[in-house]
Amino acid sequence: MIEKLNEKIKKTGAPIVVGLDPTLAHVPSHVCEKAFSEYGNTLEGAGEAVWQFNKAIVDAVYDLIPAVKPQIAMYEQFGIPGLVAFKKTVDYCHEKGLIVIGDVKRGDIGSTCEAYAAGHIGRVKVGDKEYCPFDEDFITVNPYLGSDGIKPFLNACRDNDRGIFVLVKTSNPSSGELQDLVCGEKTIYETVGAMVDQWGSGLMKGDYSEVGAVVGATYPEMGKALRAVMPRACILVPGYGAQGGKGADLVHFFNSDGLGAIINSSRGIIAAYKNEKYASYGEAAFADASRAAVLDMKEDIASALA
Amino acid sequence: MIEKLNEKIKKTGAPIVVGLDPTLAHVPSHVCEKAFSEYGNTLEGAGEAVWQFNKAIVDAVYDLIPAVKPQIAMYEQFGIPGLVAFKKTVDYCHEKGLIVIGDVKRGDIGSTCEAYAAGHIGRVKVGDKEYCPFDEDFITVNPYLGSDGIKPFLNACRDNDRGIFVLVKTSNPSSGELQDLVCGEKTIYETVGAMVDQWGSGLMKGDYSEVGAVVGATYPEMGKALRAVMPRACILVPGYGAQGGKGADLVHFFNSDGLGAIINSSRGIIAAYKNEKYASYGEAAFADASRAAVLDMKEDIASALA
Repeated sequence: MIEKLNEKIKKTGAPIVVGLDPTLAHVPSHVCEKAFSEYGNTLEGAGEAVWQFNKAIVDAVYDLIPAVKPQIAMYEQFGIPGLVAFKKTVDYCHEKGLIVIGDVKRGDIGSTCEAYAAGHIGRVKVGDKEYCPFDEDFITVNPYLGSDGIKPFLNACRDNDRGIFVLVKTSNPSSGELQDLVCGEKTIYETVGAMVDQWGSGLMKGDYSEVGAVVGATYPEMGKALRAVMPRACILVPGYGAQGGKGADLVHFFNSDGLGAIINSSRGIIAAYKNEKYASYGEAAFADASRAAVLDMKEDIASALA
Repeated sequence: MIEKLNEKIKKTGAPIVVGLDPTLAHVPSHVCEKAFSEYGNTLEGAGEAVWQFNKAIVDAVYDLIPAVKPQIAMYEQFGIPGLVAFKKTVDYCHEKGLIVIGDVKRGDIGSTCEAYAAGHIGRVKVGDKEYCPFDEDFITVNPYLGSDGIKPFLNACRDNDRGIFVLVKTSNPSSGELQDLVCGEKTIYETVGAMVDQWGSGLMKGDYSEVGAVVGATYPEMGKALRAVMPRACILVPGYGAQGGKGADLVHFFNSDGLGAIINSSRGIIAAYKNEKYASYGEAAFADASRAAVLDMKEDIASALA
């Protein structure tokens, strides 16, 4: 799957992923009102509002970008109807030719980890039938449980041509409480980075591995260090835009081939119509504002990399 | 919620939680066949089989135990229909008076973490209405992202009388790859243990905090050390039974008041009918085998604590 992602990055010229992380506060009132008039102020109504919002944004930007990253928490908060909207979004993005990175940050052990792998990037058997329940192309995973919590995902990647991004250094202010602790000669994030390199060594596809890493745009120096620790990993970089990361901060996340990183923006794109810069689009044309924000982000990153 | 859990532990005399973690391989063939004949070999069929299996076990053991711990991965693997079975299980366990610990191991940051908290132990607003989507009493959470990934859960605990169990030292063989690393004078698991104590200090209910910890039965010495680091935390202890932990290993997880720990068994209870010891029950009476296994586990732990 990493080869397909790299091909699409080259084709679009955009190492960009749009984070489909809607809260109801992001959804324009006319979209909410329509959904609520049909389903009431219910979880079903919320799921419908989020799905219609996503669909409009995907329709407006799908030709510009290689991938989307729906954050499952934003759907899970609405219970079953929210997860129905998540699944509809995954399927629709596939229809539009987009790669889907499920931002699920799952992590568990043994048969439990196998179950997460089956549900998201694998297959589950029911009698003589097999299903791909959520069917993302990549998912994010948490390394705190060690190799036992990663190997079932590696197997699923191998068997189903999928990939994972392992949390290494997250973009939030308190990420250092554990991740920056120094054990022997290395920080925890460097230790996890070395594990990512090792886990990925058996899953090479071309110059890159199916095992990528999450490193926040808010920590550019650590990104530079980790780039060297994990030369074959694609780095998924959250924290651009709303969290403070800028194009110029991102140069060292990339390899010299221009690949090796994909930058996520969520609120900066999906709620662009609320940003003064794009206010002229108005609420009704929220998806056009998102398209303009993607084009600006593409330009920002391209000029930083030039 | 921790006070309610402690009251129920005292009332039942059983510091035991039954892990409702079914795979289809655990479900007796007559239960599967009935579900598949109604819904086909589909994800809906799998969800129905798992739900009927859970219901029979809950009916057989609910009067003996304070709590259950459904592992959401086992449901998520069947997609939406699996999660419908999870939700039915949570609601049914509440009807039977059981406390429900959602083993979800979620962890994320900022608004994303708030969304997980809302979906599992909080409330979500849709227009003028509020909902408790999955509505567990406690959930397990992952600390790798630091305080930013925990504080939204603490707020939800405070606002909704709920609790969390933070992963500290997990029961699996490779848990030490990160958790046992020594940073300065402390291991990572001791560092996280100290954080658990601090996070819990503002959420005391009686002698215990709403912020508990997960420490595997397979590491009794570390359990003893962590008991001292987190005197006010209830320790959720996986790894008993199928993973190798025994009653005698568990003594030091408890405080001198006889509280402070709750021991989980999953396969050892729900698949007891497959164990030679309970084979005489036969597949048809699988739930009675589970009841017998709970009674034996209760006896094992009581005699270890005596």
